[in-house]
Amino acid sequence: MRALVFDGALKVEEQHKEPQIGPGEALIEVRRAGICNTDLEITRGYLNFHGVLGHEFVGVVREVASQEDKTWLNKRVVGEINAACGRCATCRANRPTHCPNRTTIGIDRHDGAFAEFVRLPVVNLVEVPASIPDERAVFAEPLAASVQILEQLHIKPTDRTLVIGDGKMGLLICQVLRLTGAEVTLMGRHPEKGALVERQGVLFRTSIEPEKGGFDVVVECTGNSEGLKTAKSLIRPRGTLILKSTYHGQTTIPLSDFVVDEINIVGSRCGPFEPAIRLLERRLINVDQFISAEFSLKDGVAAFDAAFGKGNIKVQLRVNS
Amino acid sequence: MRALVFDGALKVEEQHKEPQIGPGEALIEVRRAGICNTDLEITRGYLNFHGVLGHEFVGVVREVASQEDKTWLNKRVVGEINAACGRCATCRANRPTHCPNRTTIGIDRHDGAFAEFVRLPVVNLVEVPASIPDERAVFAEPLAASVQILEQLHIKPTDRTLVIGDGKMGLLICQVLRLTGAEVTLMGRHPEKGALVERQGVLFRTSIEPEKGGFDVVVECTGNSEGLKTAKSLIRPRGTLILKSTYHGQTTIPLSDFVVDEINIVGSRCGPFEPAIRLLERRLINVDQFISAEFSLKDGVAAFDAAFGKGNIKVQLRVNS
Repeated sequence: MRALVFDGALKVEEQHKEPQIGPGEALIEVRRAGICNTDLEITRGYLNFHGVLGHEFVGVVREVASQEDKTWLNKRVVGEINAACGRCATCRANRPTHCPNRTTIGIDRHDGAFAEFVRLPVVNLVEVPASIPDERAVFAEPLAASVQILEQLHIKPTDRTLVIGDGKMGLLICQVLRLTGAEVTLMGRHPEKGALVERQGVLFRTSIEPEKGGFDVVVECTGNSEGLKTAKSLIRPRGTLILKSTYHGQTTIPLSDFVVDEINIVGSRCGPFEPAIRLLERRLINVDQFISAEFSLKDGVAAFDAAFGKGNIKVQLRVNS
Repeated sequence: MRALVFDGALKVEEQHKEPQIGPGEALIEVRRAGICNTDLEITRGYLNFHGVLGHEFVGVVREVASQEDKTWLNKRVVGEINAACGRCATCRANRPTHCPNRTTIGIDRHDGAFAEFVRLPVVNLVEVPASIPDERAVFAEPLAASVQILEQLHIKPTDRTLVIGDGKMGLLICQVLRLTGAEVTLMGRHPEKGALVERQGVLFRTSIEPEKGGFDVVVECTGNSEGLKTAKSLIRPRGTLILKSTYHGQTTIPLSDFVVDEINIVGSRCGPFEPAIRLLERRLINVDQFISAEFSLKDGVAAFDAAFGKGNIKVQLRVNS
């Protein structure tokens, strides 16, 4: 099959071996996929992953291992990217995204979705309603990661919230936070990106003076360690700081300042797919405005060049569609 | 001034005395007002209130008592309906809607908004952005009461929620709950009302069989004591039951069942106006579909007849507009 592979260099292979499904798994024919910052980081050596890239996708189930999963055949699906063992204490405690035995598609010991086919456990699949076209369904994964903030934290309608970083994740998080009724401010460097969410009732600032009071909730998603300092300067005592950035290397911080001000720090990663699909179905999130370019899978290398470029927000890959 | 007064009977008075503002208060020229179930209940004797009815309104500030409040003059506003003392322990603890010395417009010792003018403390006012027309701004008060649920409770995007009662309040609450990403089911008796929220991704049922599992969150807003029994039969153990119904008389319930199943019962009344205004400004709540009739204030008695009628959802009064 055709696949976009990273093995130290990025290349399109035409004869990549098709995935073989194991017990409980489904083979999914990929229709469309999205390029994430993590994909870009992997091509710079992040996580030392070699294999088929890609974890944001929508596709159609073409094969299942178990007779009782036949109802999934020919259904259009998105999928939770962490393939958990389902048997360990963490899985039994209903925290499969933290399963110590998990593999992660396109990221950790599991071939990804920038290919004609990808395999995933059936329990990871969520059916996509007909009203959500492929190009929106691809956003289920990053949207789920944004929704995870609402799953972890009680954000009150009267809260003042701040998102730092106007990348793909920051823009999606602003759209999720605005649903709570809370005041939402986005701080970033790109007024043209800020304008996308300003028309949805989000305030955009390129800089903010620390003030008395400060923000109740600050979401750090700049992708670098500077964001944390900014976050600390703008959060109120006893406020909650959500960490979304993942980046290579160590971070040096004045941790005692967080103790003195009694800041609640919450790490946040993958989230629930079903609510993300519901929000797309209810048309409460506008993802169309974030799609800035699309390429065929055979032009995957050019797609990555575009995704690295400053002008693009989300670059998508057409696979079997 | 013209006013719709209840003094045992409902009538329009043309020469009702204008309100006199006291320290910290504003005089508001009412533009439009909405009839609530509480108004209907009052004409049946509820709370034994006599005076000008009405607490859902939008108007323009025409007079203020203090020099420092002059910036409010000529601003279009909605207003929190509880006039608190601002000095007691409850007010100092930032719970003014529970101030023991409070009066409440159109409900408790304070003339209401079905009149050409109404008075309120300036601290109760919230400016209405130009993008929200009068007929939507009038919904700020009941929408704030719906938003109060999100202020009190962490509803998770993965929760299964149920609203019992398809009246005005139930329909608004469904629209607020859908923003959380949670599954939302409305149980009611009127499929034509259910249809209004079904197209927004809310499931509508006229009856639900108790099942294993049950709902994580149940909101009871039927306006009668039968709703509580239904709620108990459909909530899961350790689930949260939000009580929105207020009605005359005592309720007999098997309270031990709530202990055995460890149900969390949360009473819920008035809510924050700023988030309600933000949600209207962001066009996340469709209130237009609920306005089923409007009358001039001089036809206020006919408006109440219409509001008592089965076919109407929200009846509005044009005052100075």
